[in-house]
Amino acid sequence: MQFEFTQLEQFTKKVLTKIGCPETDAATAAKVLLAADLRGVDSHGVARLSGYVRLWEAGRINVKPKIRITHETPSTAVVDGDAGLGLVVAPFAMQVAIDKAKTAGTGWVSVKNSNHYGIAGIHAMEALKQDMVGISLTNASPLVSPTFSKERLLGTNPISVAIPAGKQPPFVLDMATTTAANGKLEILQRKQQEAPFGWIQDKDGKPSQSPFAVKEGGALLPLGGDREHGSHKGYGLGSVVDIFSAVLSGANYGPWVPPFVAFLEPHPHPVGEGLGHFFGAMRVDAFRPAEEFKDHMDNWIKRFREAEPVTGQEKVLIPGDPERELETERRQHGIPLLEPVVNDLKDLGERLGVDWVRK
Amino acid sequence: MQFEFTQLEQFTKKVLTKIGCPETDAATAAKVLLAADLRGVDSHGVARLSGYVRLWEAGRINVKPKIRITHETPSTAVVDGDAGLGLVVAPFAMQVAIDKAKTAGTGWVSVKNSNHYGIAGIHAMEALKQDMVGISLTNASPLVSPTFSKERLLGTNPISVAIPAGKQPPFVLDMATTTAANGKLEILQRKQQEAPFGWIQDKDGKPSQSPFAVKEGGALLPLGGDREHGSHKGYGLGSVVDIFSAVLSGANYGPWVPPFVAFLEPHPHPVGEGLGHFFGAMRVDAFRPAEEFKDHMDNWIKRFREAEPVTGQEKVLIPGDPERELETERRQHGIPLLEPVVNDLKDLGERLGVDWVRK
Repeated sequence: MQFEFTQLEQFTKKVLTKIGCPETDAATAAKVLLAADLRGVDSHGVARLSGYVRLWEAGRINVKPKIRITHETPSTAVVDGDAGLGLVVAPFAMQVAIDKAKTAGTGWVSVKNSNHYGIAGIHAMEALKQDMVGISLTNASPLVSPTFSKERLLGTNPISVAIPAGKQPPFVLDMATTTAANGKLEILQRKQQEAPFGWIQDKDGKPSQSPFAVKEGGALLPLGGDREHGSHKGYGLGSVVDIFSAVLSGANYGPWVPPFVAFLEPHPHPVGEGLGHFFGAMRVDAFRPAEEFKDHMDNWIKRFREAEPVTGQEKVLIPGDPERELETERRQHGIPLLEPVVNDLKDLGERLGVDWVRK
Repeated sequence: MQFEFTQLEQFTKKVLTKIGCPETDAATAAKVLLAADLRGVDSHGVARLSGYVRLWEAGRINVKPKIRITHETPSTAVVDGDAGLGLVVAPFAMQVAIDKAKTAGTGWVSVKNSNHYGIAGIHAMEALKQDMVGISLTNASPLVSPTFSKERLLGTNPISVAIPAGKQPPFVLDMATTTAANGKLEILQRKQQEAPFGWIQDKDGKPSQSPFAVKEGGALLPLGGDREHGSHKGYGLGSVVDIFSAVLSGANYGPWVPPFVAFLEPHPHPVGEGLGHFFGAMRVDAFRPAEEFKDHMDNWIKRFREAEPVTGQEKVLIPGDPERELETERRQHGIPLLEPVVNDLKDLGERLGVDWVRK
């Protein structure tokens, strides 16, 4: 089933207003959440709306947070999200990074006491409007085992880097630090298909092809998959994301990160507050004139895009290409939602007295 | 054959002084170069010394560079390496980043007109002494094909992040953004063994297991190996390293990066000057009190190190553990060098009138 972007955005806004979010916060959160659906990261979009509501019902989300800076230097800040929606806390913190960059050249903000913030890329991309490089990292519920570990100690801890160009569209990397994101497993589960080796391990730490292995106590694997293919690098990157997001700010890290699902309790002995994010903004003209930089980015992008492809592939892609193409298409033709997601949203609307969108 | 660290360091210093490096530069360069041998990245250590000398003979290295800042803001700078040894330019630039961090909270330096800088990690680790997080990136000669590309457009473009701890040794990630580094192929070449799939492709862009494939026009593969295992992520990370190091500074990027080997000519139409690096330093107390941060880093490290290992593995490692253990051992028992490397260094010494070390 296809739905218009604006309809889903309105629905999301109304739901969030209904649970007590101020109007402007609800608008921000809806925009951030729906960005995932537009850009094809369906697992992080409106499908998660009822999950956020359940966290609120469980008393784990503050819909009227007093988000504030608790410490700062000319180029850094720590932001306390006051247990607010990450969808609202993150845009606040990214704006602090951008404002710092205006005067100091760069701005770097570590965030504690927050919740899940949607897709990493949408926050990094905020910097593009100001001719800045944007960086966005977050930790997340532990689903990933470090190399050689049976235990799950890290989230899929994404890294996003957005870099402005001139005539070319911007370079937007937005990646989980795992071989495959959890959303891909869900697709295989529905199709009853096996996963390739290198994506997951079972509860005993053995390589597995079952898309249900993670649900059954197994784990996602760090980018690389196994030691021979460099999984210690994916583990290292996921760790850096965790440390920048949470050890710098005072949030929970590693296995202490609170789970997204409301039916799982947070750790009884937390090591910090909520979960953490990390944002960066670098003015390109803090390094060289912006026009010069953007001309060279155009040249970089053009050269890579025109690289000779291997047999069977049409072309070489630039990070951000697939998501941008999908966004254009979905803005025009609508956002596809699976039936269980639609039913879940209808139920949610009914429960809160918000009309579901008309087809 | 094993050699004492100080003997190799002295030899390196004398060679560099002989070709015209000022005494202090030669000492810095020797220290940086030998750090690779100590930490087990044998391909980037003293084995490369004659390569640097040949670049100097080809007129591509300036042994008396005037390294200078060409542009700056409170938290950023661009450094022009004046075609000096990267082994000397990098420590200068990292120091600029550290000095900026002292006043602005963080410091970020992009470098142009440089040459190969040894291992990334040694520069990032400079920040540790000041209770700062250190970051070190560099681009390098194109040996890596982006996902779906037949052409080689990126170097092995490493990422290093060094994070201070308290009682625990620091966290030091130092990784190429490829599945396997070139040095590992050299080992397989000598042993006449096949490489695992996911490391390399042949000149037609097909997966290959031949360790000679890269020499024969093939390429190293980005971390992930193939699209199904996330090679677009490794490609994206390598690209960020390239752009931060060279498009921000005005160095050559992508396929324009000058080759390390002197027998290959640099690109006839360069897009910048030399190759590029990128350094970052973040004061941990620009975010939270240093002692508090270090206590939590100790807790992070301890928890990960004590994770239950999978069957057949002794323990979970922290990034930097293997290199640190090797350094302790090699400082005590000496650095092993292969016979061809020893012969090459003896020849070099003879040619320049520098005595080879006594056994």
